[in-house]
Amino acid sequence: MFSEQMYELGSKRSVIRELFEYGRKRAGEIGADNVYDFTLGNPSIPAPECVKDTIQYLIDSLDPVLLHGYTSAPGDLSVRKAIADYTNETHKTNISASNIYMTSGAAASLSICIRALTENKSCSPGLVCPPKQHLCHSELREESLTNIDEFITFAPFFPEYKVFVESAGAKFTFIPPKEDFQIDTDNFARTLSSNTKAVIINSPNNPSGVVYSEQSIITLCGILKKKSEEYGHPIYLIADEPYRELVYNNTYVPYLLNYYDNTFVCYSYSKSLSLPGERIGYIIVSDKMQDSEKVYLAVCGAGRSLGYVCASSMYQQVIAKCLGQTSDISLYKENRDILYNGLTELGYNCVKPDGAFYLFVKSPEPDANLFCEKAKNYELLLVPGDDFGCPGYVRIAYCVKKEQIIKSMPAFETLMKKYIWF
Amino acid sequence: MFSEQMYELGSKRSVIRELFEYGRKRAGEIGADNVYDFTLGNPSIPAPECVKDTIQYLIDSLDPVLLHGYTSAPGDLSVRKAIADYTNETHKTNISASNIYMTSGAAASLSICIRALTENKSCSPGLVCPPKQHLCHSELREESLTNIDEFITFAPFFPEYKVFVESAGAKFTFIPPKEDFQIDTDNFARTLSSNTKAVIINSPNNPSGVVYSEQSIITLCGILKKKSEEYGHPIYLIADEPYRELVYNNTYVPYLLNYYDNTFVCYSYSKSLSLPGERIGYIIVSDKMQDSEKVYLAVCGAGRSLGYVCASSMYQQVIAKCLGQTSDISLYKENRDILYNGLTELGYNCVKPDGAFYLFVKSPEPDANLFCEKAKNYELLLVPGDDFGCPGYVRIAYCVKKEQIIKSMPAFETLMKKYIWF
Repeated sequence: MFSEQMYELGSKRSVIRELFEYGRKRAGEIGADNVYDFTLGNPSIPAPECVKDTIQYLIDSLDPVLLHGYTSAPGDLSVRKAIADYTNETHKTNISASNIYMTSGAAASLSICIRALTENKSCSPGLVCPPKQHLCHSELREESLTNIDEFITFAPFFPEYKVFVESAGAKFTFIPPKEDFQIDTDNFARTLSSNTKAVIINSPNNPSGVVYSEQSIITLCGILKKKSEEYGHPIYLIADEPYRELVYNNTYVPYLLNYYDNTFVCYSYSKSLSLPGERIGYIIVSDKMQDSEKVYLAVCGAGRSLGYVCASSMYQQVIAKCLGQTSDISLYKENRDILYNGLTELGYNCVKPDGAFYLFVKSPEPDANLFCEKAKNYELLLVPGDDFGCPGYVRIAYCVKKEQIIKSMPAFETLMKKYIWF
Repeated sequence: MFSEQMYELGSKRSVIRELFEYGRKRAGEIGADNVYDFTLGNPSIPAPECVKDTIQYLIDSLDPVLLHGYTSAPGDLSVRKAIADYTNETHKTNISASNIYMTSGAAASLSICIRALTENKSCSPGLVCPPKQHLCHSELREESLTNIDEFITFAPFFPEYKVFVESAGAKFTFIPPKEDFQIDTDNFARTLSSNTKAVIINSPNNPSGVVYSEQSIITLCGILKKKSEEYGHPIYLIADEPYRELVYNNTYVPYLLNYYDNTFVCYSYSKSLSLPGERIGYIIVSDKMQDSEKVYLAVCGAGRSLGYVCASSMYQQVIAKCLGQTSDISLYKENRDILYNGLTELGYNCVKPDGAFYLFVKSPEPDANLFCEKAKNYELLLVPGDDFGCPGYVRIAYCVKKEQIIKSMPAFETLMKKYIWF
């Protein structure tokens, strides 16, 4: 009657969502100030002034027919040109407007790239199926399962990757992390196969906050180049970069267009400009990518097929006027330091993150789900790491008010004592 | 290497797009005022004042963290409640917030509904494939082709329907129109089969401007009820309604939730509030639909799988404050009257439309593409009807400045003389 697969996706709420709803309920019962909700990656720092100023300027001085009208599907040309110029200046690249496709945020960017790359080898009705008269179904099924496009990422990873990859009809694979949450390049090299279509990397990382080292990026790209040659087709790199500007202590974040030719950059202004609800971002298809222009057209086609008409015309103008600006990131750093220092002093074990706004803490007991359940008794809402591909860890989103972090410390202390004393 | 299907979609620009680009080039050569561009359905009447006023109010008085933050995936609860109340009051329905899912416009609404309904019976890798060990490939292929979900619509139709349906892996079918562009219910009844998943109707219609009569809607719904019973499963109705408010002379537009239980309403504020670039609309899943709550969850799942996180948080608030308002529609009516009267006086043949902002004119020669090519010699940019499923017709979008219509009349006259005199 309707799609079971979509029903499953819609009804199986993510753990994050479940906890968030619980938090709201609990806030109603005991007051919002008494619930320590660390579940959501919703920026707590307001958008910089330029956002409000630009909106004011646009509604005051632009013809509303132009301001709110359709842009071309890949986005307003002057906006794309401004982003290209800014990127070239910042990262010493050489892209142009024709390498940029404006999107409704990072989830759209990723969905579109994945769809543009996936060659549906199975017999989807909308596609022409190559005749293979002599294969029986069991063989066909096996062939189709061994031949399907694969997207690889590194744990811990953003859980929706799996949804986007599988919705495109491709296979999702992840590589477990090393102890410090850096990339396990050896395991990665062993996992690659001729079916590997692309690799998704997310640095600064959600949920670990870790920035992948330049050395690991160089090694990764070396493997990709070698394997692409060996298999006779490119393996693409998809850089999911919503946290690019959220780095502390001047940590260097390699810009992947400069390390590997067959790279897509999926960017979103959700975190850097604190605009997550407005859904605005872009895809860069590297100018140096093999068949770059054709791949760009496949991106346009994928956007069209998924029902994206254009990114918000007003917010395209807003971000173009705010290039290079960010919310006051120093407040996140302050949060990180208070939380990291506080928790490690209490005996919690955690890699100190260089970016994003998450701590990924080792659960004091092997099952992080049980730990998170116990945490709820102290009004602490934490997300178990299982869906991120890392059982035994919990994510703490510190994009909250500083006061919440300070006030929550006694709860973290009482919780930890349960484990130290028994 | 990448998806051929997506490349095709991205590189095969629509005829509308080609003509639009040609118009821009031509405007550069001879001045915009001398090109009579009737290609795009981009509203020419500014958004009503309430849009600007609400944006002003929101940036002045709302905490930016709240204003620009994520809403829940189906949309802000108070916004959905306001839409439900307004709909109930206007159309005497009985829906609630939990029947409404906010979207990034009508294209998103349609893509999501189609994806939510399509049961992928082929062996897409992300899906569990039922074992059919004994079928050989040719049989399997045939079975899969005869068993796939089908979406039916009525010509003339918006060309992207085909893209959305085929991208979901389903089959797209259309019924040719009657002479007056009303629904051919007899042909429709003959075309329905047990594979028919849903019927898409668009009234007021793009490109004909015709409003389907209440009688044809009653007949259509009667057929759907009878056939649903016969096949033992619901055939859904998808009402694509971006032009609902754009009607003239108080023409009655039946509200389909009141005529058929298994109805989705796909709405967009693009045309009524002149906000096409901001991408804001919604889906209503009828409260009377069989398994309504489950289907709603499938809609949520489909939105998630396509990479939609939430509709623009600011524009959700904007439309909630502007419910019941529209741009000044009387200006479109004025355009329609000048254009319709002018063209019919010149000998053009056209059904007088009751809604939307298009005239669908019979081409004076059988091949509308040739006619549109000749029209370009007089700087008239018109869209051939072939992609709308109606060869031999052209679409004229009259959402332009009145002056353009008046100034273009001599060109239409000279063009027509080519046909009368030879």
